[in-house]
Amino acid sequence: MQLYTYFRSSAAYRVRIALNLKGLNADYIPVHLLNNGGEQHSDAYKAVNPSELVPSLVDNEFQLSQSLSILEYLEERYPETALLPQDIQQRALVRAFSLAIACDIHPLNNLRVLQYLSGTLEVSDEQKNTWYRHWVDTGFKTLEALLHSSNGRFCFGDQPTFADCCLIPQVYNALRFNVDITAYPKIASIYQHCNTLAAFQQAAPEAQQEAA
Amino acid sequence: MQLYTYFRSSAAYRVRIALNLKGLNADYIPVHLLNNGGEQHSDAYKAVNPSELVPSLVDNEFQLSQSLSILEYLEERYPETALLPQDIQQRALVRAFSLAIACDIHPLNNLRVLQYLSGTLEVSDEQKNTWYRHWVDTGFKTLEALLHSSNGRFCFGDQPTFADCCLIPQVYNALRFNVDITAYPKIASIYQHCNTLAAFQQAAPEAQQEAA
Repeated sequence: MQLYTYFRSSAAYRVRIALNLKGLNADYIPVHLLNNGGEQHSDAYKAVNPSELVPSLVDNEFQLSQSLSILEYLEERYPETALLPQDIQQRALVRAFSLAIACDIHPLNNLRVLQYLSGTLEVSDEQKNTWYRHWVDTGFKTLEALLHSSNGRFCFGDQPTFADCCLIPQVYNALRFNVDITAYPKIASIYQHCNTLAAFQQAAPEAQQEAA
Repeated sequence: MQLYTYFRSSAAYRVRIALNLKGLNADYIPVHLLNNGGEQHSDAYKAVNPSELVPSLVDNEFQLSQSLSILEYLEERYPETALLPQDIQQRALVRAFSLAIACDIHPLNNLRVLQYLSGTLEVSDEQKNTWYRHWVDTGFKTLEALLHSSNGRFCFGDQPTFADCCLIPQVYNALRFNVDITAYPKIASIYQHCNTLAAFQQAAPEAQQEAA
C-alpha cells in the first residue's frame, strides 16, 4: 500500500494513526501542500485523487480518497486490531464523534479555506484566527458533551477507535493555533494519554521524514 | 424512531431519502433553523444533540447525530434494501463519494457558516454567493471525476447507495443558489433520474409538512 500524505495534514495524520494501530505497512509518498504552488494540484496527483486533497491510499491498483473512507476500508479489509466496537450502537457513536470532527471542524479550518479567507476575502490575520478558534471551540464543546459518559483512557472505552484517530490530529492542529484546551478536560486527558503511545507518536507531524 | 429534521437541511434530507429507500418509518420532528432564533439552539434540542445541528435520530432511547453515522447505523440495523454494495472496494468508493460531499462541500455552505460570513465577517451578499459557488464548483468537479466510470442510473450502478442519498440534496441546494449543473453531465443525469422515484420525491424539502 501507498499513502499519499502531508506531515501537517490532520486528515493524513488520522490514517497514519490507524495504520500504526493496525500494524499495517504503507509506503508514505509526501505531497507538499505549500511547495511548488501546492503539489496536490499537480496533474500526477490529480490522477490519483481528483479532489486535490490528501490523503489518498493506493492498495495495488485501487485508489481511495477521504480519510474516513480509508479508515472504514482498512477496518473491513484488515479487521484485526478493530478500530470500531462490535456493538451497533457503539459503532454509530464512534462514527458520529469522528464525523463531528471530519465534517464540522476540520473542513472549515483546513489550508484551502484559510487561503480563501486571506486571499479572496482579504480578511485580516486576526479575523482568520478568530474564525479558526470559533469553529474549534464550537466543535470541541460538542465533542466534550459527546464524551460526557466516557471514563476510559480513549474516547470510547479502553481501546482506541476511529474517534481517537480523528481527535488527536484535531487537537494537535488546535494547539498550533493556540486554542486553550484546558476548557475541555476529557479531550485534554485523552490527548495526553494517546500521545504516550508509539502508534500515535510515530504518526505525529514531527515524526515524519518531511518534517526534518 | 424519531428523526429531528429541517425541511431545507441537506443533511436531514439525506436521512429522509435513506429511510424511504429502506421502507422504514420514523416520526419527523421539525426543528426550524431560523424561527425563534433557531430552534436547534434550544435546551430541549441540545439535550438530544449537543452540536445544535440537524438531523438527529432517536431509536428508543438511543440518540444519534451526524447524517452519515445515521446512514451507517440504519444500514447495520436494517440491512435489507442495502445502500452499500457488498464488495469492500465498492463500499469504500461509495463512502469516499459521500464524504466528498459531507466533508468538502456541505460544511462550507451550511447556514451557520453563511451566517458567520454575513454577520461576523460582514462580507457582501455577492461575496457570500461567490464563496458558495466556489466550493460547490470545486466539489462538483471532483464528484464528476469520481463518476467517470459510472454508467448506471445511480452514482454507483443500478441501485441507489449512500452516494445518491448525499448527492441529490447537495444538487438541490446548489440549484437554489443558481449553480449551473449542465457543466456536470453525470451529476445532472443522476439527479434527474433519482427525482423520478417516490423515495426521493417524498424526501424533498417541498414535500415536508413544514414547507406547506
